[in-house]
Amino acid sequence: MAKKKNEAPLTGITVSKEEDFSAWYTELINKAELADIRYNIKGFVVYREWATITIKKMYAKYEEILERNGHLPLIMPSLIPESNFLLESEHVEGFAPEVFWVTEAGSSGKLNEKLALRPTSETALYKMYALWIRSYKDLPFKRYLSCQVWRYEGKMTRPFFRGREFHWIEAHDVFTTMEGAEEQVKEDMEVTYKMIQDEFGIPIIFFERPQWDKFSGAQKTFAADALMGSGKVLQLPSTHLLGQNFAKPFNVKFVDKDGEEKYGYQTCYGPAISRIYGAMIAYLGDDKGLILPFDIAPVQVVIVPILFKGKEQKVIEKVNEIYEMLKGKYIVKVDESDKSMGNKFYYWELKGVPIRIEVGPKDIEKNQVVIVKRHDGQKFFVKEKELESFIDDIAVNYTQEIKEKKLVDFESQIEVADHINAAIEAINNGKIVCCGFCSIDKDGEHCAEVVEKDIGGFVRGKRVDEEKHEFATCLICGNPATCTVYIARSY
Amino acid sequence: MAKKKNEAPLTGITVSKEEDFSAWYTELINKAELADIRYNIKGFVVYREWATITIKKMYAKYEEILERNGHLPLIMPSLIPESNFLLESEHVEGFAPEVFWVTEAGSSGKLNEKLALRPTSETALYKMYALWIRSYKDLPFKRYLSCQVWRYEGKMTRPFFRGREFHWIEAHDVFTTMEGAEEQVKEDMEVTYKMIQDEFGIPIIFFERPQWDKFSGAQKTFAADALMGSGKVLQLPSTHLLGQNFAKPFNVKFVDKDGEEKYGYQTCYGPAISRIYGAMIAYLGDDKGLILPFDIAPVQVVIVPILFKGKEQKVIEKVNEIYEMLKGKYIVKVDESDKSMGNKFYYWELKGVPIRIEVGPKDIEKNQVVIVKRHDGQKFFVKEKELESFIDDIAVNYTQEIKEKKLVDFESQIEVADHINAAIEAINNGKIVCCGFCSIDKDGEHCAEVVEKDIGGFVRGKRVDEEKHEFATCLICGNPATCTVYIARSY
Repeated sequence: MAKKKNEAPLTGITVSKEEDFSAWYTELINKAELADIRYNIKGFVVYREWATITIKKMYAKYEEILERNGHLPLIMPSLIPESNFLLESEHVEGFAPEVFWVTEAGSSGKLNEKLALRPTSETALYKMYALWIRSYKDLPFKRYLSCQVWRYEGKMTRPFFRGREFHWIEAHDVFTTMEGAEEQVKEDMEVTYKMIQDEFGIPIIFFERPQWDKFSGAQKTFAADALMGSGKVLQLPSTHLLGQNFAKPFNVKFVDKDGEEKYGYQTCYGPAISRIYGAMIAYLGDDKGLILPFDIAPVQVVIVPILFKGKEQKVIEKVNEIYEMLKGKYIVKVDESDKSMGNKFYYWELKGVPIRIEVGPKDIEKNQVVIVKRHDGQKFFVKEKELESFIDDIAVNYTQEIKEKKLVDFESQIEVADHINAAIEAINNGKIVCCGFCSIDKDGEHCAEVVEKDIGGFVRGKRVDEEKHEFATCLICGNPATCTVYIARSY
Repeated sequence: MAKKKNEAPLTGITVSKEEDFSAWYTELINKAELADIRYNIKGFVVYREWATITIKKMYAKYEEILERNGHLPLIMPSLIPESNFLLESEHVEGFAPEVFWVTEAGSSGKLNEKLALRPTSETALYKMYALWIRSYKDLPFKRYLSCQVWRYEGKMTRPFFRGREFHWIEAHDVFTTMEGAEEQVKEDMEVTYKMIQDEFGIPIIFFERPQWDKFSGAQKTFAADALMGSGKVLQLPSTHLLGQNFAKPFNVKFVDKDGEEKYGYQTCYGPAISRIYGAMIAYLGDDKGLILPFDIAPVQVVIVPILFKGKEQKVIEKVNEIYEMLKGKYIVKVDESDKSMGNKFYYWELKGVPIRIEVGPKDIEKNQVVIVKRHDGQKFFVKEKELESFIDDIAVNYTQEIKEKKLVDFESQIEVADHINAAIEAINNGKIVCCGFCSIDKDGEHCAEVVEKDIGGFVRGKRVDEEKHEFATCLICGNPATCTVYIARSY
């Protein structure tokens, strides 16, 4: 075959995802060249080309749906004066341990006031909202920022999953009534399902977070958790019902139809695109490398010419013909490198290109090509005249196939526990525990601490999409249960 | 007519651009709601919705052409360790007075090393290039970042034109030879003409900047200057021939074909999108408000129903019909507000929407609509069946028309001066002076200081597109001239 003599075979990923998720992820990041952790500030990484291209496409998709739902974009300064920051007391308490501070500038030295690198933009934005919003006619007022934020994380960082600088969208909406704000929270959750599950292939479940785990300053937080294949969940986008908690200190008011001045009701929503990217590649990837949803793959179709001495010309002509046919519709790449055929296959599998087309002299004789789908490895011999519609079919179905395949895994991870020992066993087996709980209000915090200490998991909260409540008592204290909660280890 | 009783007419911009550019610009920014200067950090402004939408479109256009020319995107940390920063001495000297420093984080207080908010990314990026580039096969290596940078500006800030945080693209390229780098500089200049002149309608001229005014650390700087209608030029994108000035301290090396390890030759290019936006709205706008190139207008076509009592239904039906016809091709908005007709016209003119379609009952009777082009106010009565192709024609030609109209103004601003008094007069009359000069190397710096002090302008450098050199002596010192330079006031 067309294997080159003396060429060392590329080694793919050497660790199995199932056996050691962490090592697998690190190898994936390195070998597929997605991020470089050698940047010389702790917790800050470089996003490399292949990752950046997909992240940009993810931003575009997310922005499109937000705009369709009536959001307009803004660009805000990334620095926030300390005095803004101090206006909402719960908020400052929650974020103060995580803030990077700018204290000096230029040769003039110390600044008069410390400036926070935004860890989130409420305290920058709502001062402006107070100036911009005048009347009920201005509401709903729905805006978003696509930006990075900085948080001085104490936890271990991991490229894309958690870093001290990450890239997100934050949407900040104002309504005349609490019902309007509650409706927005529902819309945010629908958008999240549509994006994270349907577009990016990661199954999620929305939980109402316990009061001790909500966004600092919110009345309620609803967060999406995804199971990452290692028995741990990862928090993905969360949406927060702020009520009037910020509107009052920041003076976000409007004159209502009745002529009275009232405080607005607010929500905020924060999909962290870089983190979703991390979750996506971690969740979808396999031991060969990346698996990417079709739309957001940097290359969608790779054509590999199978070259035999003396027959190169014919193959190259056919490859170019196919390239010309597909390039207007898809992002197509012809692998003209001098790697061996095997190494070319490895390389593009590692990179997660959804469709590989192989063109060899024997195929040409038979008027066919070989097509291989990355996510399931299925191989097809396709007649040339059917090629285009065959590719179209794969393109349309590819992401949906991934989603369906991976969706099943999620539900199977849930285990009901009536006793603490059963919960410990389930957690140790990489399961999510479903159980009765005394309360997700402040009262329940003590039991949650026991969960963390004795079971080794976290109370993720009440499932938003679940009405049932069938437990009589709290798993921990034995008092009457007021709700069903889920316990899981988390990133 | 359909004017509402008791409705105050909107006041447009009250200052003439020609009479007081500065006041006109400030009113434009405020009334068209492009930026809000009330954010409470000096030199930092909020970019509002209308500006943000266009800036995003400008980014997309710029990124597309860079990618077509072989650049790939990266996302870099926005903080740079002080130790990186110190590696290239000219660079640190140039930028040190402008750097914001992060010195504290979270509750743990002082950081071990101060971190710069990037004023530009050479010192972050080239440390990575040293790790990534191995062989001549990796070159040319062309990458870009779309990001914001921070500079502690001493000069007066003005929204979009100059701020302490601004939004740009920076492209950083590495070549095996100096010729390769020089070719890249030419490509960057071509890209600049294509974008700034052809797409954004601002006429520019490229100057090789004098040595005392080059980018800190570069061998040569080539910068685009635009005349802003107020007798001042504004520096727009510049491209820098770095040679090996950074490659050596940052160790950007490659193994060449001959097996030897060599330093790469580098260029960098920095189109400041937010500044280009400022230049564009300033240069193209008129006393009615914004004029925007067609492609990057947030709304391209506005349809204004002319409503008379009893005839609303017919008009609304026709408006919806036209909306449905155009919405797949253009960004169309129907003005359904309860403003008067006159105020609707004012408002969309202020906002710079390229095409206004008016639909009234009399027009419907005649099977026609009224179309008004924003940039020249031309009004057309167009038969319904010709409407779509008429709009298509305007769409195709609109930006080109703006460009042609505004291009003439530029050349007429240049005035040749043989004596210092003629130069002073020309500068005072808002002209650009063309004259002989002793040298744009270090030797000429003293004469440039005289220019600044006595003439009140700056030596912008040698025109890149001009071969001629017809002056015998330097305008200032009277010594033999080595080149022709241009002198102008600048923002």
